[in-house]
Amino acid sequence: MWPVPETNPLPAVPPLDAAAMAAADALQARLTKPAGSMGRLESLGTWLAGVTGQCPPPVPEPVAVVVFAGDHGVAAQGVTPWPQEVTGLMVAAVASGTAVISALARQIGASVTVVDVGVASEPLGSPNLLSANVTRGTADLSTRPAMSIEQTHAAVAVGRQVADHLVDHGHRLLVTGELGIGNTTPSAALIAVFAGRDPAEVTGRGAGSDDAMLQHKVEVIRSALALHRPSPDDPMSALAAVGGLEHAALVGYLLAAAARRTPVVLDGVIACSAALVARALVPEVTSYLVAGHRSSEPGASVALEALGLEPLLDLGLRLGEGSGAALAVSLVQASARLLREVGTFEDAGIDG
Amino acid sequence: MWPVPETNPLPAVPPLDAAAMAAADALQARLTKPAGSMGRLESLGTWLAGVTGQCPPPVPEPVAVVVFAGDHGVAAQGVTPWPQEVTGLMVAAVASGTAVISALARQIGASVTVVDVGVASEPLGSPNLLSANVTRGTADLSTRPAMSIEQTHAAVAVGRQVADHLVDHGHRLLVTGELGIGNTTPSAALIAVFAGRDPAEVTGRGAGSDDAMLQHKVEVIRSALALHRPSPDDPMSALAAVGGLEHAALVGYLLAAAARRTPVVLDGVIACSAALVARALVPEVTSYLVAGHRSSEPGASVALEALGLEPLLDLGLRLGEGSGAALAVSLVQASARLLREVGTFEDAGIDG
Repeated sequence: MWPVPETNPLPAVPPLDAAAMAAADALQARLTKPAGSMGRLESLGTWLAGVTGQCPPPVPEPVAVVVFAGDHGVAAQGVTPWPQEVTGLMVAAVASGTAVISALARQIGASVTVVDVGVASEPLGSPNLLSANVTRGTADLSTRPAMSIEQTHAAVAVGRQVADHLVDHGHRLLVTGELGIGNTTPSAALIAVFAGRDPAEVTGRGAGSDDAMLQHKVEVIRSALALHRPSPDDPMSALAAVGGLEHAALVGYLLAAAARRTPVVLDGVIACSAALVARALVPEVTSYLVAGHRSSEPGASVALEALGLEPLLDLGLRLGEGSGAALAVSLVQASARLLREVGTFEDAGIDG
Repeated sequence: MWPVPETNPLPAVPPLDAAAMAAADALQARLTKPAGSMGRLESLGTWLAGVTGQCPPPVPEPVAVVVFAGDHGVAAQGVTPWPQEVTGLMVAAVASGTAVISALARQIGASVTVVDVGVASEPLGSPNLLSANVTRGTADLSTRPAMSIEQTHAAVAVGRQVADHLVDHGHRLLVTGELGIGNTTPSAALIAVFAGRDPAEVTGRGAGSDDAMLQHKVEVIRSALALHRPSPDDPMSALAAVGGLEHAALVGYLLAAAARRTPVVLDGVIACSAALVARALVPEVTSYLVAGHRSSEPGASVALEALGLEPLLDLGLRLGEGSGAALAVSLVQASARLLREVGTFEDAGIDG
């Protein structure tokens, strides 16, 4: 098992820097634009000041996208139309640069690392693939816990180590990505637990379920919750019972990034479900997250509301891989540029 | 007056290439993603195929932002809290690279050209400023036509020449920008005329009107419409009566870009009002336009609906300059990358 199971305490996440945020708000008011006219870009820039503790904040670059990949025993219950081997094939596609996230990362000048944290099939070697397989797919959460506590801690540790490594190597904006056939099922289960909703409210069609499959998926989640009785008050056990290896890795990734004062752009329903778990472990983590988009999966909107995050984009996306988050990166960077590069009324000779 | 008044016929705008669009739709279905999972990005990519007549479409670059600047006699009626000389100062800010649009253009790797098509103050010389002043600001539309027909044609010709020049020099995506103190008043008037709405439904606070000023602005527009009785059936006369020089230049810019099969990203309420005029002149022009964002000005939403355009972003922006359109450019480019760079199910060994 890689890495050594994590028993370290969870990282401490510092609060946002209130002084830097106040300075950014004051600067926003002096820039050559009507007050508030850049809308969401202004609050985004002020947030980056709080995250980084600098006003103006640096333009957050370079950008790293990490795609955590895992398989799901629950796929055997017929909750997805896709065969499990597609996970491994898509890992290979990301590693070779031909996946959707590969193209979007090139658009924004970001690196992409795909991490095998729990793929069922044997991985192909590739310089862009990090092999950190904890176990070859989760157990079927409809009949037993998806992961042991030890596996869960190990997968969280993978995510933490990847985020720490990226920050150590100078990355200043992290993007969440994931892939795994069947992974909207554990995501919906986690959102039901941590947002306190009925499975029917948070379960969607994922990568293409029809009406009957969707109904079955809801019933599978409902019975899993009845079996395991996961509680938001014991987040790690709930994650182990109904989560996935990529979910656990994302939890670690979010926590480590926040501990390092590094902003993270969240993708869709899988990332949002992981963010709910991370928040239950360390409430301050959400201060370092921006929601890249509103996925068309219903659980994503529920999770975003529970997290108190307003997404930047709403384009009807439901692919995952980090695709919606990658598309939002340019907006985040632009918000910092406004604070750094736009002149003041005083500079322009205007009585603002 | 620069240039020589335009009496040439309006350019012919070809239809989108249906075969290229059908090929793009077919290609979308073969890429390694669940059908439809990239939502709006898929329709955007197919649209670019239709615009360019190529499947996959080229990634549209380089990108040019043009900021057409003009002044407005109606500013004397107290429809804006800002003094008219701010237009010239903001022209200088754009030319020197310190405006909001300057920072956003750097974010997307676009050039910015500011065009004095009707600024009241003497222009400052700058390599980034194109002096094409038709007249030093419009007449007060509340008491007489804003422009003569000759001035209107001249300003349209400026926009056409700028777009033609940019396309001739290899630009493959054009962004609309404008600035001009008071220019949301003629924009609201044009939207009222061309969308057939009451001025109260389409008039907003622009760069910071308070309640009393907003009410006054509505009354000024209402009386101007009663005075001139502009008709959507005579678009050039309506544009002359209640438009502005930057509006007219934008009309020419949109028409020339469409005639050259070059996609245009529309910014906010001023650009949308110009698009309504352009469509009244040449209905096919809208096929070449994508709405970058939904401005918080109420007229923008009315105009977008009338144009049949669904905006890409909704971030509460109301600055103008091309800012919202610039922020959407990365999405447009990404949509082409998906068609060009993502592998097929067949390549990946997946039975799609």
